[in-house]
Amino acid sequence: MPRTVKKRSLKAGLPPGSLVYVGEKGAAKATVTVVEYKEGVVREATITDLTECFPCVDASTVTWIDVNSVHHVELVAKLGECFGLHPLVVEDILNTDQRPKLEDYGDYLYIVFRALTCNGSRCSMETEQISLILGSNFVLSFQEKESKIFARVRERIRTGKGRTVKSGADYLAYSLLDTVVDNYFIVLETLGERLEALEDALVENPAAQTLREIHLLKRDLIFLRRSVWPLREVLNGLQREDSTLVTESTKVYLRDVYDHTIHAIDSLETFRDMISSMLDIYLSSASNRLNEVMKVLTIIATIFIPLTFISGVYGMNFRFMPELKWRWGYPAVLLLMAGVSAYMLYYFKKKKWF
Amino acid sequence: MPRTVKKRSLKAGLPPGSLVYVGEKGAAKATVTVVEYKEGVVREATITDLTECFPCVDASTVTWIDVNSVHHVELVAKLGECFGLHPLVVEDILNTDQRPKLEDYGDYLYIVFRALTCNGSRCSMETEQISLILGSNFVLSFQEKESKIFARVRERIRTGKGRTVKSGADYLAYSLLDTVVDNYFIVLETLGERLEALEDALVENPAAQTLREIHLLKRDLIFLRRSVWPLREVLNGLQREDSTLVTESTKVYLRDVYDHTIHAIDSLETFRDMISSMLDIYLSSASNRLNEVMKVLTIIATIFIPLTFISGVYGMNFRFMPELKWRWGYPAVLLLMAGVSAYMLYYFKKKKWF
Amino acid sequence: MPRTVKKRSLKAGLPPGSLVYVGEKGAAKATVTVVEYKEGVVREATITDLTECFPCVDASTVTWIDVNSVHHVELVAKLGECFGLHPLVVEDILNTDQRPKLEDYGDYLYIVFRALTCNGSRCSMETEQISLILGSNFVLSFQEKESKIFARVRERIRTGKGRTVKSGADYLAYSLLDTVVDNYFIVLETLGERLEALEDALVENPAAQTLREIHLLKRDLIFLRRSVWPLREVLNGLQREDSTLVTESTKVYLRDVYDHTIHAIDSLETFRDMISSMLDIYLSSASNRLNEVMKVLTIIATIFIPLTFISGVYGMNFRFMPELKWRWGYPAVLLLMAGVSAYMLYYFKKKKWF
Amino acid sequence: MPRTVKKRSLKAGLPPGSLVYVGEKGAAKATVTVVEYKEGVVREATITDLTECFPCVDASTVTWIDVNSVHHVELVAKLGECFGLHPLVVEDILNTDQRPKLEDYGDYLYIVFRALTCNGSRCSMETEQISLILGSNFVLSFQEKESKIFARVRERIRTGKGRTVKSGADYLAYSLLDTVVDNYFIVLETLGERLEALEDALVENPAAQTLREIHLLKRDLIFLRRSVWPLREVLNGLQREDSTLVTESTKVYLRDVYDHTIHAIDSLETFRDMISSMLDIYLSSASNRLNEVMKVLTIIATIFIPLTFISGVYGMNFRFMPELKWRWGYPAVLLLMAGVSAYMLYYFKKKKWF
Amino acid sequence: MPRTVKKRSLKAGLPPGSLVYVGEKGAAKATVTVVEYKEGVVREATITDLTECFPCVDASTVTWIDVNSVHHVELVAKLGECFGLHPLVVEDILNTDQRPKLEDYGDYLYIVFRALTCNGSRCSMETEQISLILGSNFVLSFQEKESKIFARVRERIRTGKGRTVKSGADYLAYSLLDTVVDNYFIVLETLGERLEALEDALVENPAAQTLREIHLLKRDLIFLRRSVWPLREVLNGLQREDSTLVTESTKVYLRDVYDHTIHAIDSLETFRDMISSMLDIYLSSASNRLNEVMKVLTIIATIFIPLTFISGVYGMNFRFMPELKWRWGYPAVLLLMAGVSAYMLYYFKKKKWF
Repeated sequence: MPRTVKKRSLKAGLPPGSLVYVGEKGAAKATVTVVEYKEGVVREATITDLTECFPCVDASTVTWIDVNSVHHVELVAKLGECFGLHPLVVEDILNTDQRPKLEDYGDYLYIVFRALTCNGSRCSMETEQISLILGSNFVLSFQEKESKIFARVRERIRTGKGRTVKSGADYLAYSLLDTVVDNYFIVLETLGERLEALEDALVENPAAQTLREIHLLKRDLIFLRRSVWPLREVLNGLQREDSTLVTESTKVYLRDVYDHTIHAIDSLETFRDMISSMLDIYLSSASNRLNEVMKVLTIIATIFIPLTFISGVYGMNFRFMPELKWRWGYPAVLLLMAGVSAYMLYYFKKKKWF
Repeated sequence: MPRTVKKRSLKAGLPPGSLVYVGEKGAAKATVTVVEYKEGVVREATITDLTECFPCVDASTVTWIDVNSVHHVELVAKLGECFGLHPLVVEDILNTDQRPKLEDYGDYLYIVFRALTCNGSRCSMETEQISLILGSNFVLSFQEKESKIFARVRERIRTGKGRTVKSGADYLAYSLLDTVVDNYFIVLETLGERLEALEDALVENPAAQTLREIHLLKRDLIFLRRSVWPLREVLNGLQREDSTLVTESTKVYLRDVYDHTIHAIDSLETFRDMISSMLDIYLSSASNRLNEVMKVLTIIATIFIPLTFISGVYGMNFRFMPELKWRWGYPAVLLLMAGVSAYMLYYFKKKKWF
Repeated sequence: MPRTVKKRSLKAGLPPGSLVYVGEKGAAKATVTVVEYKEGVVREATITDLTECFPCVDASTVTWIDVNSVHHVELVAKLGECFGLHPLVVEDILNTDQRPKLEDYGDYLYIVFRALTCNGSRCSMETEQISLILGSNFVLSFQEKESKIFARVRERIRTGKGRTVKSGADYLAYSLLDTVVDNYFIVLETLGERLEALEDALVENPAAQTLREIHLLKRDLIFLRRSVWPLREVLNGLQREDSTLVTESTKVYLRDVYDHTIHAIDSLETFRDMISSMLDIYLSSASNRLNEVMKVLTIIATIFIPLTFISGVYGMNFRFMPELKWRWGYPAVLLLMAGVSAYMLYYFKKKKWF
Repeated sequence: MPRTVKKRSLKAGLPPGSLVYVGEKGAAKATVTVVEYKEGVVREATITDLTECFPCVDASTVTWIDVNSVHHVELVAKLGECFGLHPLVVEDILNTDQRPKLEDYGDYLYIVFRALTCNGSRCSMETEQISLILGSNFVLSFQEKESKIFARVRERIRTGKGRTVKSGADYLAYSLLDTVVDNYFIVLETLGERLEALEDALVENPAAQTLREIHLLKRDLIFLRRSVWPLREVLNGLQREDSTLVTESTKVYLRDVYDHTIHAIDSLETFRDMISSMLDIYLSSASNRLNEVMKVLTIIATIFIPLTFISGVYGMNFRFMPELKWRWGYPAVLLLMAGVSAYMLYYFKKKKWF
Repeated sequence: MPRTVKKRSLKAGLPPGSLVYVGEKGAAKATVTVVEYKEGVVREATITDLTECFPCVDASTVTWIDVNSVHHVELVAKLGECFGLHPLVVEDILNTDQRPKLEDYGDYLYIVFRALTCNGSRCSMETEQISLILGSNFVLSFQEKESKIFARVRERIRTGKGRTVKSGADYLAYSLLDTVVDNYFIVLETLGERLEALEDALVENPAAQTLREIHLLKRDLIFLRRSVWPLREVLNGLQREDSTLVTESTKVYLRDVYDHTIHAIDSLETFRDMISSMLDIYLSSASNRLNEVMKVLTIIATIFIPLTFISGVYGMNFRFMPELKWRWGYPAVLLLMAGVSAYMLYYFKKKKWF
């Protein structure tokens, strides 16, 4: 997380609206996929260079332009120019460290949020910023990395199945948002599994390693929380949007994805509660174990220290020690020792130490 | 709890409105009970298969269709079609991992919440999702499992006692909600009893087992909380509903069940406070016990270690040790030892160590 | 507290409006005191049975009917019938586990809250539910137990002193609320005294007993909190009541008792803060004491263990140990021992261990 | 703080509006200072007894009546009668345990708050309740104790300097409030100094005394908080007051003192955060010190216990122990002992124990 | 932080509007830079003394007067007089311990906030108060110290690049705010780096030093928080400002810097969460290490104490101890000892102590 903060400083001192890409450099070439569709018609093209603006004047079709990695500053700037985007919007698209937000610029809405995907079995979270521009008959999507997260949506358009091809640009934007929120649940599940594994480990054999993993899990939760919480406001804002860009029928769907986000937040908070409960249990267990260790030490020491003292006394070399010459001195001392130990054991038993 | 999150991922990538049942598979056959009543008239039927829609046009009667386990996707889809439900509603009925919510679709209200029941003396909580569709003269109820939670309501209709048969569909929906909230109190009581038992155990003999049970109780509370809190919003929404589906006279009753929910939340928060207080007490007791153990060890060790040292000195084999030949050397050393111990005991007494 | 939750389950499954008394059974007979008054005129009667409704049509007088223990279901039901109370109100009067609330039924207001009284010097809190029905010219009050909490109000009416006899039913209701809130302060004071005593004990001699009493005090605070917090909303609601049942001049007085409630809540929160601070101090003191004990043990052990080892070496029985035959061997060893101890003491002094 | 709660119980059971002074008894005589001023004219008088009301009809001048200790019930009651105050206001003036509040009675505003002053270098906080009555051309101020807190304001009026003499009664009320809030900052500074001293002590030599002082500081903060927080609402209310009693030009000044209060609250919260951080550090340091002590004990014990055992073995008196007769037995054992210690030291070194 | 509170007390007792500079004295001379610009025209002047007001009546140009250290009371007072500032504004400019706030005085807005800069590699935070007066065609900026924070903005005006020279006074004010918020991110980054370094230290070798640095980092965060949080309200207020001083096109930019502030707050809260998580880990690790140390001690002591006792028994000097004369006594005892140790080791192994 601190990592994501660092990048900003590259921009300090520059005038507002300066176009600087603050993320890691990705592939050599950005891929721009253009899909134009209406019911029954789908046109698809991939362009790698953008020298001239192409018109998307046909109001009956929806045009979706998907830019696959935003580190090509000129390309993004050109697109922004073509679609008449505000300089601050282009700046924010390139600045891949945005907090999820929704901005209404009259002719178009600017939506930015984070997609999360899981890598590997232990779920090392991958994250990328996604910017959407929703116009009356077009959607621009800018992905930070070359991920395949929107592949299924494109597939659905290609095959002409589902509501997407029958609906407007707002439904397409909803589909993209829905895909991203669905991915949150996959991440949540993996976190849930790690949580359960940790809980079992806590019961069976709590170790220092468990502690470290609790810490890592907590970090991941903090990160996830930071992505999901503001998205809720974004979706709430979209539902209440007065503009004509979002139709009433799509708002029902937006309410659904809003509910999903609430659900995800709910699960996150539950996880947080459970982790803090686990930390309590861990600390208590540690103090329990310490107690047990100390009891063993104390019992052993308390029984043997007096006995050792007695044997020490009769190991002294004084010339005049009458007991040493007694016929039954040795057995008597052994008996004394046995008596002392028996009393000690009885005392600990009464104290319920074992 | 993490378990409930897992199921969602089955749906990731599918288009919105896809009908997938995410719960556990239940009985082979779903049972659909249809009850149609007005004052003085009660008709009841059980159908196991639904091939054609049946009309419920008689505006003077109320029709209640209770589906007993929702894992039969086609049946639910068919019912949804018959009553003109929005695809997202049908999807949510099948997706048995919803957060309690209320949605107004104009012609009907969609209400979803969780019923909780206690199994066995230690109250292993059973939970199921219940979806209600409240129309002008019908109520559809979808239960996740084959529970008997609504049996009493049906009984009351059959016998014609109570207000239900005299009132409309909204009162029936209220009765079902009221039954579910009443069950929360039974669960709360059992949790309260476990809490009291734990509190006694904490006083009498705090053990590692106590800690684990505190943890389990806390988990159950987190789970209960997650079901009850959002229900409060649902009921608040129902009371404020502008539509003609909920009559003014029923709103008085809804206010009552709303108050019950607030009461349940109140008790839950009290339990949470008490559990966190118990954890504090547990940790403090543990540190108290450790203190006590350490004191015993320290007293024993501190008294005997110097004595053992003295006896060790006179156990040395130096040829020239004048004390060893003294007539009263041995008694003198014993006296010295007694003196040292007495001083030690006095010192600990002064420090209030015992 | 868990106790109070238990009772509810008696009602699960019954139809709404079922009249079941959920409290403990009290005296054999309920006492109903009827006071009718206007300025200069006071009529008082005690009835133990209610077979017929008596009219209270005289709009110029105020009628106060005080039912002293509500476990006589028929009597309460009859009264409810006479005054035309909603079934849910009668149910709530009998269900003595209500959360404080205010409900406006048009013709009358239903107010329910809890009275707290202190018993004995250690203040074992007594609690009872009180229900008020405020009509245009009558007040019904239902007390859960046979307490004397309203005796002084009745006395004031009898003697004709104070504003009560000159004012309407709303002022009477205010007087009863004011009496109850005044009693909260007595309970708060006793809790404050216990808190101070605990704080002194914490300074002088923190023991396991102190911990238990902190826990008990915290429980009492949680309970008190649960009674006082919702009362605040009730009084706020009364002040904002639009109906003609509460006059403007009485609202000034209601604002006053509202301020008292806020004040009580304020004190409660302060107590909570102080108790949590005391727990911190307790835990820190415990760890301090453990530190001290460990230091004593460590100092004693660390000084004597090496000395004992030295004496052990010269207690060995090897035939060829030249030191044993030296003339000054014994004094030399004693000197060595003194040197070692001196160094150890210097080391601990430097470490500021004593 | 619990102390302040106690007094209330004197009033339980009395009818509302009963005049009872609940504070400590002060000086024998209350001092009433009357100042009447307009620009260029200042009349001042001190009266000790009030038998008749004096008119303050001259609308062009401002009359300030300052009562220096409110425990003379009759005097306050008489003043209340003269200025037509509501009985509850007079009751509240005498009840010196009010929560800061603002009440609008139409003709006048009633403002009550607490003044805090520091006594001595260690700042034992003195607190008193101050009640202000702000009329159209008069201000009544009631101080609980005989403090000199308003002396400077009176001085400014006398000398005719500043805005006060040129402005109305509302500006005078503002001046008094401003004086009180300025005093909060002096108290805050002293608390800040104590906090810094504690922080230094925490770094240099954390002792049990430090803990106790943290606790005391926390108590003082809780107390201060209780006085300052509600004052914020009071000042916010004054700014939004619709009545003609507060002019627009004075509202600018009230906003300023409101900002000061926010600033004081801000500092208080910062102090709270820092104190809770200090407690964490204290606890962590304690556990660190315990660790260090235990390590020393463990190292010493672990090195010498095996050595002592070895010497014990060769101190046994068996007749047949071949080693005892070996020529190099003794040096060999010494070597063995050195070897064991060396290994132990190496082991601890590897474990980074010292 | 307590330091910043101290200064206020200089002003206690003074009439409102008194001009007292409460900061540290800076350079001998204040530097006042005057920049007057419109598109294509930039006039710049430095004045060190201000005896007469200069007019800035030319409505087509923007005048920016930057005062570089505010401790010259007369100069600031004179400026205030020239621009007709309210006495409270001038007082606040000099009182360099303000909470960030926005005040609308009709003709001009008064904005005050804190700039933070990092000094050195370990980022010892420098802070200064900056006051802005935004009029229709002028901006006054008052810096507490002689910092170069606005140098780049002046440079941009001089070169005529960027939007600034083409826009009005509101855009200039925005540029200054944006510069300050950009600097927050540099501070945040340095804090993030310290946090990461601490986290690594926590994993590798947690020491008492780590604890202290966590404490210091927490202090810095508290301080930063105090500066950033209220700025958010300020910027929110600026965006919603109704006056003509802020144009619509600048509000888009203000929304952008508002978003940056939200982002900074977000990061701050994440840091706080992570630090509190680190403290938990630190405490848990400490208790883990204690456990480990205690186990080593217990194992060593528990194994050797019984052995030492046995050797002590056979070191006693009783005349009649048959074992001592047995031929195989010594080897038998050694075997016994080996057996006892073996059992102990097995016991600890079973308990999973090592």
